[in-house]
Amino acid sequence: MISYKEKYNEYLTGFDSLLEDFCHGLNCKPEKLAKSLKYSLKSGGKRLRPVLMFAVGELLGVERKKLSNFALALELIHTYSLIHDDLPEMDNGDYRRGRLTNHKVFGTGNAVLAGDGLLNTAYSLLFGECFKGNDYVSAAKFICDCAGINGMIAGQSADLEHENDECVDESVLNFIYENKTAKLLVAAVVVPSILCGGKYYAELKTFGSVLGNLFQLTDDILDVEGTFEQLGKSTGKDKAEGKYTGVRLYGLDGSKVRADVLADKCTGILEKFDGDISFLKDLVQFVRQRIF
Amino acid sequence: MISYKEKYNEYLTGFDSLLEDFCHGLNCKPEKLAKSLKYSLKSGGKRLRPVLMFAVGELLGVERKKLSNFALALELIHTYSLIHDDLPEMDNGDYRRGRLTNHKVFGTGNAVLAGDGLLNTAYSLLFGECFKGNDYVSAAKFICDCAGINGMIAGQSADLEHENDECVDESVLNFIYENKTAKLLVAAVVVPSILCGGKYYAELKTFGSVLGNLFQLTDDILDVEGTFEQLGKSTGKDKAEGKYTGVRLYGLDGSKVRADVLADKCTGILEKFDGDISFLKDLVQFVRQRIF
Repeated sequence: MISYKEKYNEYLTGFDSLLEDFCHGLNCKPEKLAKSLKYSLKSGGKRLRPVLMFAVGELLGVERKKLSNFALALELIHTYSLIHDDLPEMDNGDYRRGRLTNHKVFGTGNAVLAGDGLLNTAYSLLFGECFKGNDYVSAAKFICDCAGINGMIAGQSADLEHENDECVDESVLNFIYENKTAKLLVAAVVVPSILCGGKYYAELKTFGSVLGNLFQLTDDILDVEGTFEQLGKSTGKDKAEGKYTGVRLYGLDGSKVRADVLADKCTGILEKFDGDISFLKDLVQFVRQRIF
Repeated sequence: MISYKEKYNEYLTGFDSLLEDFCHGLNCKPEKLAKSLKYSLKSGGKRLRPVLMFAVGELLGVERKKLSNFALALELIHTYSLIHDDLPEMDNGDYRRGRLTNHKVFGTGNAVLAGDGLLNTAYSLLFGECFKGNDYVSAAKFICDCAGINGMIAGQSADLEHENDECVDESVLNFIYENKTAKLLVAAVVVPSILCGGKYYAELKTFGSVLGNLFQLTDDILDVEGTFEQLGKSTGKDKAEGKYTGVRLYGLDGSKVRADVLADKCTGILEKFDGDISFLKDLVQFVRQRIF
């Protein structure tokens, strides 16, 4: 039987080969703009969102080819959000995925444009899909709304607004987790459902949301006890910057208990599905441990 | 007969009432994010792109209702581009449309997110249009590509890259004018054509491009001889920042001669059209004089 690692790797290399082709065709002037887009797109990363999309697609019987541009668009959106999030006046990150952040290499002005460019290019890809019919339009609009001002951008805005708050309010923390992090994971798992008539739509939406919350909580835990090598970015930043984190609210041990509860909840949802859920079940555990 | 001014005002108030309704429905958390989006959207402005779209629509017999969300989306995209362009590490503008720029009021981090939010919201509106059929998808994708990495973003990137170049290269100047400024005007005039089966498609594309070049050239002229009151933003910035401008290449008098040539070219294209072109002909002259 194919192991979890082999399967993850199969999804990952499948996506990376798509991305490689996409980057090959990504030409624009000035050269520096094209270079900066490719620098951030090709900086490795777990490709968690595309992998999730492919895995759910396989579970639902949606062929990977049908998902390709949705997976690419989602990864472009995720990458733009990292570039803008790392800007000096946002999270001020110097490293991402083990390499210097985009603005450290290309300058802040160019990094703003690189982010804008990736976001715009994602939607150009998705408009291209919209010619294929209304299910495709629905899937594209779903991604757009998850990424938008009632989704990821709202979460980032709340994250910024509540920096240095003295106390952590649980409802605000939930809002940030849900929007900043979970919404794009929801998009990843719901798109295959939309493309096959809405199968398990509600369950997948909840699954993506809980998994996203788990992902952010383990991120917060690793910011305290992880290493640069493990995360590819500097640790200990949350506390230094007065960030809203689960660790601040629940403590380190409390966060771990809570993470286990969220992981169990994910598994519980998966068990309602027909078909082979073993990969997704393992994935939940690996998100819990943050080993991919 | 209705005067040019009355007609412009009619298009403008029509659009502003659409925008007012749109802003009324624009709700998101945190409150600050919603406020910053509305601050920039409702800061007045000439609304040149929506006015152009409505005027061309009227010429081609495309009803305004059909164009509403395209006009809104285009103005959202234009507004996002101004917010990001005004950022300290880009053009570093303190005033826009006579008021403090977004980042001066809400901070740089929030202004990055406000721009992202407007861009994303524009595309959410356009995906909503895509359910209506492939002409709508084509029009939406056309706007997206005009705004993208082979359009406006490429122009802004080139503008940034060539800041402080010692000499002005005409091909680079043309690239900046065409992409940074003209592409969104092209979108404004081509969308109505796409929505009625491509009538005058090629002519309108050229018209938008020449008009956009004219617009940017008069902008450069006014940066030298205009006033804050006239422009709603600080003047004399281009020279101080070593910007690529028509005035640097052609001189002030040479730029005026060239602007007249471009205006004549616009009028020449319009004269090929059937129907009442009087408003658009006047508009060209007002763009030449920069009085709306």
